[in-house]
Amino acid sequence: MTRVYLDHNATSPLRPEARAAMVAAMDLCGNPSSVHAEGRAAKSLVERARAQIAAAFGAEGADIVFTSGSTEGAALALSGRDLHGSVVEHDAVRSWVTEDLSVSQSGVVTVLDPARSTLQLANSETGIVQDLPDGLAVTDATQVFGKLPAAFNWMGATMALMSAHKFGGPKGVGALLLKRGTELSSQIKGGGQEMGRRSGTENVIGIAGFGAAAEAAAKDLDAGVWDRVAELRNILENAVAAECPETIFIGQAARRLPNTSCFATPGWKGETQIMQMDLAGFAISAGSACSSGKVRASAVLTAMGFDEITAQGAIRVSLGPETTETDVLRFAKAWCAKQKKHRARLA
Amino acid sequence: MTRVYLDHNATSPLRPEARAAMVAAMDLCGNPSSVHAEGRAAKSLVERARAQIAAAFGAEGADIVFTSGSTEGAALALSGRDLHGSVVEHDAVRSWVTEDLSVSQSGVVTVLDPARSTLQLANSETGIVQDLPDGLAVTDATQVFGKLPAAFNWMGATMALMSAHKFGGPKGVGALLLKRGTELSSQIKGGGQEMGRRSGTENVIGIAGFGAAAEAAAKDLDAGVWDRVAELRNILENAVAAECPETIFIGQAARRLPNTSCFATPGWKGETQIMQMDLAGFAISAGSACSSGKVRASAVLTAMGFDEITAQGAIRVSLGPETTETDVLRFAKAWCAKQKKHRARLA
Repeated sequence: MTRVYLDHNATSPLRPEARAAMVAAMDLCGNPSSVHAEGRAAKSLVERARAQIAAAFGAEGADIVFTSGSTEGAALALSGRDLHGSVVEHDAVRSWVTEDLSVSQSGVVTVLDPARSTLQLANSETGIVQDLPDGLAVTDATQVFGKLPAAFNWMGATMALMSAHKFGGPKGVGALLLKRGTELSSQIKGGGQEMGRRSGTENVIGIAGFGAAAEAAAKDLDAGVWDRVAELRNILENAVAAECPETIFIGQAARRLPNTSCFATPGWKGETQIMQMDLAGFAISAGSACSSGKVRASAVLTAMGFDEITAQGAIRVSLGPETTETDVLRFAKAWCAKQKKHRARLA
Repeated sequence: MTRVYLDHNATSPLRPEARAAMVAAMDLCGNPSSVHAEGRAAKSLVERARAQIAAAFGAEGADIVFTSGSTEGAALALSGRDLHGSVVEHDAVRSWVTEDLSVSQSGVVTVLDPARSTLQLANSETGIVQDLPDGLAVTDATQVFGKLPAAFNWMGATMALMSAHKFGGPKGVGALLLKRGTELSSQIKGGGQEMGRRSGTENVIGIAGFGAAAEAAAKDLDAGVWDRVAELRNILENAVAAECPETIFIGQAARRLPNTSCFATPGWKGETQIMQMDLAGFAISAGSACSSGKVRASAVLTAMGFDEITAQGAIRVSLGPETTETDVLRFAKAWCAKQKKHRARLA
């Protein structure tokens, strides 16, 4: 039986378009900073990717600073700024902010001073989407780009974080988008690449894959691929709810990412569920990938008012463009069987 | 006529072994931080690369922190430490140090307090190799790994910087090597990857290429490939010296990287030479790639006592494992013809 990968919010498989662009980029030997023909060819590939990303994500005219991903982007955008944030942010953001923004039971964060705050566009664990206040300093849009129509120029935020591997690009490359003219002090200094904002020889092959993935992701969105994914997510949740009515679905009433389902079984640890489902052939997660392995309740769920036992019993199932109805129904069946076994042991 | 690439110190072509490893890694869809099978497969690939790098560069038992390259490595190793350095360091290092170490006419840097200093192992422009004092805090070994036998565990330095693309790996990935137990405060915070020293989802495909390139580079070194490169470099310099005796060779009396030749024609700007040679089919550079395009004299050469006119008239020719005798003789002939034209115009 082939395995079913339902952990797209952790990372997504490389798109064929990204793979082809990366393999083609492997033939370029130049350093984008070199002035000779080989250097110019590499530079031109980097700039082509920048244009693809601007077009795919509504960032024409904005500055796009290539990074190694959203975690580096968060350090670049947030460090030394002392912005306000909330505990539902990713750890990469939480590391740099004062966590004093309140979170409602439905997962909505209240921002008091947008120009001095950061707010994620969507949560990686629950998929809950926030309305961004106009004039927001920084948004972590990592989970949204490529899954929902999102144009940086219309978000109202001065800066946005993205990682290529969340929409079919390679891991280890991303970008910080900035409204033109935004001041930014560099964290990684040296040769002055990226207009002095992020030095270091560019990840040319990765950037080529990033650009191609962005273009392909935008086409998928236009073609309605993620509407179909949302239908499959709903089929999954309905199947689970029908078979295991005690399951607690999180964020179901809120606007969510089309691919994300988060549900809890109080008393049945998320880590246990992941291991059982892994053995059964399904890849899912509890909390964000980065904090997997650490046995603790999700700060996201406790902030929403769930108790520790419920928060520790939550898992995240996140679908992708290649997910099929068979996949989600197989998962629902396998998971419900395990939940019933768990409940039987307790009875 | 095929072009001749003689700018390996700027960046080197991707080795076939690295390409194959990267293409294979493209099939893995997991996040190395995920606990399921897909995550464990990605993690295992990252750890395999770490072991390859340790074996290739004598860093068994040392900590290897993956970065986006030496520029990020420099920020990680140097920021907040206020170490002493010299002006012959790369800009990525110079950004973080007090530049008070003296440089002799032969390019040798005097370190007074090793534990509070940083010193490059070899200079990217001249190829001059330094003797590292025991107990040195940080060495930028970017230009040495893969070109000269160099074992981190025997260097005497607490930390060393490397970039994969200098020895046939991909651009945008590198490592900071540290003696085990060295304290290091992270610059990029979040999910806690790399034992909390460098957060962010790993550049899995790039790291796979890095590991394979390291292994292949070590084999090349053992096989004497770089001895042959040194012979070709000497053939090049002899041909230029014979045809253009007024040429000033820099660092020829010092211990140098086997592949690097730096020579100056006072009054004939390096940038002009690069453009003329580019049109003639040769890729070379003036100064480091990162600072190319900026019209200024090399700080490395002025620190060695060369006047501005000489420093501005210097170029760097850097060979690689695939360079042939025909390549270097064609280059010497083409370059000497241009130098003669330049001198004729002045006469």
